[in-house]
Amino acid sequence: MQNGNGNGSEVHIPAIESGVVRIIPLGGVEEVGRNMTAIEFGPDIIIVDMGFQFRIEETPGIDFILPNTKYLEDRKDKIRAVIVTHGHLDHIGGIPYLIDKIGNPPIYSRKLTTLMIKKRQEEFAHLGKPTIIEVEKEETIKIGGLSVRFFSVTHTIPDSMGVIIETPYGWIVHTGDLKLDHIDGVPSEKEEKEYSIFKGQKVLMLMADSTNVEKPGYSVPETKVFDTLEGYIRDIKGRIIIGTFSSQLERIMKVIEFAEKHDRKVVVEGRSMKSNVEIVKQMGMLKTKKGTLIGIEEMGEYPPEKILILATGAQGDDFAALMRTAMMEHKYLKLSKHDTIILSSSIIPGNERAVQKLKDNLSRQGAKIIHYQVSDVHSSGHANRDETAWIHSHIGAKFFMPLHGYHYMLRVHAEIAKSVGTPEENIVIPDNGSIVEIREEGTRISVRKEKAPSNIRMVDGFSIGDMQEVVIRDRKALSQDGMFVIITTINLKTGKLRKSPDIISRGFVYLRESQQLLGEARLIIKKSVEDSTAGQNPINFDYVKDRLTDAVEMFLFQKTNKRPIVIPVLLGV
Amino acid sequence: MQNGNGNGSEVHIPAIESGVVRIIPLGGVEEVGRNMTAIEFGPDIIIVDMGFQFRIEETPGIDFILPNTKYLEDRKDKIRAVIVTHGHLDHIGGIPYLIDKIGNPPIYSRKLTTLMIKKRQEEFAHLGKPTIIEVEKEETIKIGGLSVRFFSVTHTIPDSMGVIIETPYGWIVHTGDLKLDHIDGVPSEKEEKEYSIFKGQKVLMLMADSTNVEKPGYSVPETKVFDTLEGYIRDIKGRIIIGTFSSQLERIMKVIEFAEKHDRKVVVEGRSMKSNVEIVKQMGMLKTKKGTLIGIEEMGEYPPEKILILATGAQGDDFAALMRTAMMEHKYLKLSKHDTIILSSSIIPGNERAVQKLKDNLSRQGAKIIHYQVSDVHSSGHANRDETAWIHSHIGAKFFMPLHGYHYMLRVHAEIAKSVGTPEENIVIPDNGSIVEIREEGTRISVRKEKAPSNIRMVDGFSIGDMQEVVIRDRKALSQDGMFVIITTINLKTGKLRKSPDIISRGFVYLRESQQLLGEARLIIKKSVEDSTAGQNPINFDYVKDRLTDAVEMFLFQKTNKRPIVIPVLLGV
Repeated sequence: MQNGNGNGSEVHIPAIESGVVRIIPLGGVEEVGRNMTAIEFGPDIIIVDMGFQFRIEETPGIDFILPNTKYLEDRKDKIRAVIVTHGHLDHIGGIPYLIDKIGNPPIYSRKLTTLMIKKRQEEFAHLGKPTIIEVEKEETIKIGGLSVRFFSVTHTIPDSMGVIIETPYGWIVHTGDLKLDHIDGVPSEKEEKEYSIFKGQKVLMLMADSTNVEKPGYSVPETKVFDTLEGYIRDIKGRIIIGTFSSQLERIMKVIEFAEKHDRKVVVEGRSMKSNVEIVKQMGMLKTKKGTLIGIEEMGEYPPEKILILATGAQGDDFAALMRTAMMEHKYLKLSKHDTIILSSSIIPGNERAVQKLKDNLSRQGAKIIHYQVSDVHSSGHANRDETAWIHSHIGAKFFMPLHGYHYMLRVHAEIAKSVGTPEENIVIPDNGSIVEIREEGTRISVRKEKAPSNIRMVDGFSIGDMQEVVIRDRKALSQDGMFVIITTINLKTGKLRKSPDIISRGFVYLRESQQLLGEARLIIKKSVEDSTAGQNPINFDYVKDRLTDAVEMFLFQKTNKRPIVIPVLLGV
Repeated sequence: MQNGNGNGSEVHIPAIESGVVRIIPLGGVEEVGRNMTAIEFGPDIIIVDMGFQFRIEETPGIDFILPNTKYLEDRKDKIRAVIVTHGHLDHIGGIPYLIDKIGNPPIYSRKLTTLMIKKRQEEFAHLGKPTIIEVEKEETIKIGGLSVRFFSVTHTIPDSMGVIIETPYGWIVHTGDLKLDHIDGVPSEKEEKEYSIFKGQKVLMLMADSTNVEKPGYSVPETKVFDTLEGYIRDIKGRIIIGTFSSQLERIMKVIEFAEKHDRKVVVEGRSMKSNVEIVKQMGMLKTKKGTLIGIEEMGEYPPEKILILATGAQGDDFAALMRTAMMEHKYLKLSKHDTIILSSSIIPGNERAVQKLKDNLSRQGAKIIHYQVSDVHSSGHANRDETAWIHSHIGAKFFMPLHGYHYMLRVHAEIAKSVGTPEENIVIPDNGSIVEIREEGTRISVRKEKAPSNIRMVDGFSIGDMQEVVIRDRKALSQDGMFVIITTINLKTGKLRKSPDIISRGFVYLRESQQLLGEARLIIKKSVEDSTAGQNPINFDYVKDRLTDAVEMFLFQKTNKRPIVIPVLLGV
């Protein structure tokens, strides 16, 4: 087993040699999110996915984290395509921020995904329209000098696919995100058929989803979730509110189908969910009778037991429909004890408290709550351990590299690959920016000692680029202990303060109850400044500032056990 | 089912009437943590537990959150005792901050708990020693006019107990935190015996732990965890590192016992764990042979397979032993692929990413990791649904109030109580500060319309008191968008700027790359100030400041999509 290495600082990376296949995961292998992988062979680079990651605790104030595309920016002229496996944000989210940086290559995907990318691009109208090319899973297309084909995979959004790039040494297979459709651990005929394309083929390399490989056995099949939801929709007497991700499009479509079947009107609440339902309706993927989908303002015209509401916000997102309902701030949606709320989603790590607050506030209004910990109303879209082993066995690759997960998940995935027969030396566990090379006519795999730049890039307001450590560090410090700005006017001739210093402080202590502290601080400031300036002519302002900062920091820490950012402003008159 | 109500603003609360039992949960019923409940009858108040809660995302920079004790501060002379159920911080953590505020009543608990309270109090030496009285579970003691007795409960720390307060109308029972010792859902004889004290008694009121009531069936019994751990300690060939909470004292003692039995030396790493092991050794609860416990610096003298390390930091805590090892910053503890790390703890909500980082960095060094999601190496100390039902049935109370959990958990607990026969009208679901009264000679339960003050109190550095919303709000804002301080000197006669304004900004944008923005901002500042002062004599500084703030905020938002806190400083000369 070979590991990623290096730290991603800028080093010279030699051009690819003839006959070598280079694979570089630029994101998604040290986290769940910002998936992006580049495959380079001869004069061509093909990119699979271009996602982003939602901000994390360590990056306060940041909007999104992006893959680092520096390696690609330096090789724009080689980039032939971005192939997108499916329409989730961790696979398409980076497109508006990155596509022009890498020279606007054409984007290939299946229909629904292309529509979702186009829809999203509308929010970035100033950017110009990217070239988007629709492909179907049966197609084999030529991209640069390479033949590329696709296979359909089971995920939680229609039109999810895996990608196959044909090289002279065999197929390079990228699964995207996937699970298996199965009954009690026996994959369906459809899956058997889909994976039969690999039979007898020379598969050089497999890259696959690691998100859920730590979980034992097989995941709960989505069909089981459908059955459970249909049962509730059929049997529950009052109004039903189903909260889920707007990206759970297969489930959303099924819920609408069940509602129609069991004679309920459907209200779709939440901007992203409305937008996604609109797309699948336009495509003809979702067929509803006239009058099934109603506006929320029409809800009052039907008895509660004839209503089903599909809403965003099951993660406790502050301004989403469910949370506004929980906080009793929703204009149309008021709860009673006759309502049942089904939270048809898992809890994304980090959202535990937000979801708890949601459940607390929904239940305070008397509504009954059903969630995935007590009923099969949700299933993840990612394969568990035994499913993953099945996928490995059916693809039968020579080399393997786990993708989509934190480092430890990749290690667990590597153990699964070993357990189904992949030799340890044929497995690479990458880091973001690792340059993996298949050399010697497809007989050896190795990781280059140089690494593609992999420092964090982010979207912070309108700023897109390298994360500035100093800005993030200051935000963290400010969030803990606040700030303390001192403004003093010094008589340049005498070195004395012209008047008592001004102090501006935020986020530190409650000023109204800290007058004594501020008074003492003013004395410390005066003493520090006048001690430092004594005998100086001219005054060395940097020296005075440093001493003042030290004196005030120490004083405040002794008095409060807090360390605000102290900023001295000295004005000489 | 009756609900807590009111908002905790200061209202007059009538004195308790004769013959009424008042129960006020002051903390722990809208969260997991800061447990504290007051029971008032006639001239006496008895308090059960005095915990704190660790800071949450919503309270950046705060150290701890405390129960609001205002109700008790107003009735100090009635307080006869604080009874502590066990030695965990969510039950004892508040003592150093609160005990003198409520007049230093004596603290009663079983031996280990009293030692842990004393140990902790050493860190607050300036406070004076509280009166601590040791009780045993067989005892019945007189506190004020009330008889109080105890019963032993199974939890994860020795000497855990429940509390029984005898009133003329029956027993008031508070379980503390608890689970059941059982095999396949059949509680042990010891449990049967312990709960037999309730047989034939008139139990007026039950208050019980809700932490895990959403989980089905019975919890994994600790004995199962012990067996699993012993198996690993016996069979694993290399060095073993077990990470757990220092509060998991029963398990820590067992692990040391297993290590000795299977001929391993034990290194205890981490200040709190060392301290707790020291306490149980001193008590004679933990008996080890001479030489079993060794210092970490002696580790090199033994072969790896003879070593077991017990370490803190299984939650990914930044400076704990395991995290320092993961980051390769531990002086003595270096990992290799011959090491096995057992994370014998669950993940506390909110710590998911920290634990992921821990696992990533430990596994990067080749160590094998075993955690509770793949092996029974951890069990919670709180009863699941069916255990909880068993406890209800065996205590057989007339009234019920769930404690220790978020609101939704309390609701689920109330459903369990109903399912075992408690009538809905005999159940109260409280909020922090709800004043629950058992009236009419123990025949009715109700919640008063007034509420005891329940706004959040906190420890923030040396400051202990009401949470200052403005400070927290500023910290949050600063953490997202930083700050932008403008210092301008205005000629009082002309209203013109004397020189280009100074700008101090932190946590907003990367200044080195924002020179153009700053230049434009200076122009906006000059224009705004000089437009506002035009024709003013004298200058209305507040007006100028307000207009300047608005202008700069709008400008910065348009340019960056960020909203830093803008602070103008105007100096007139």
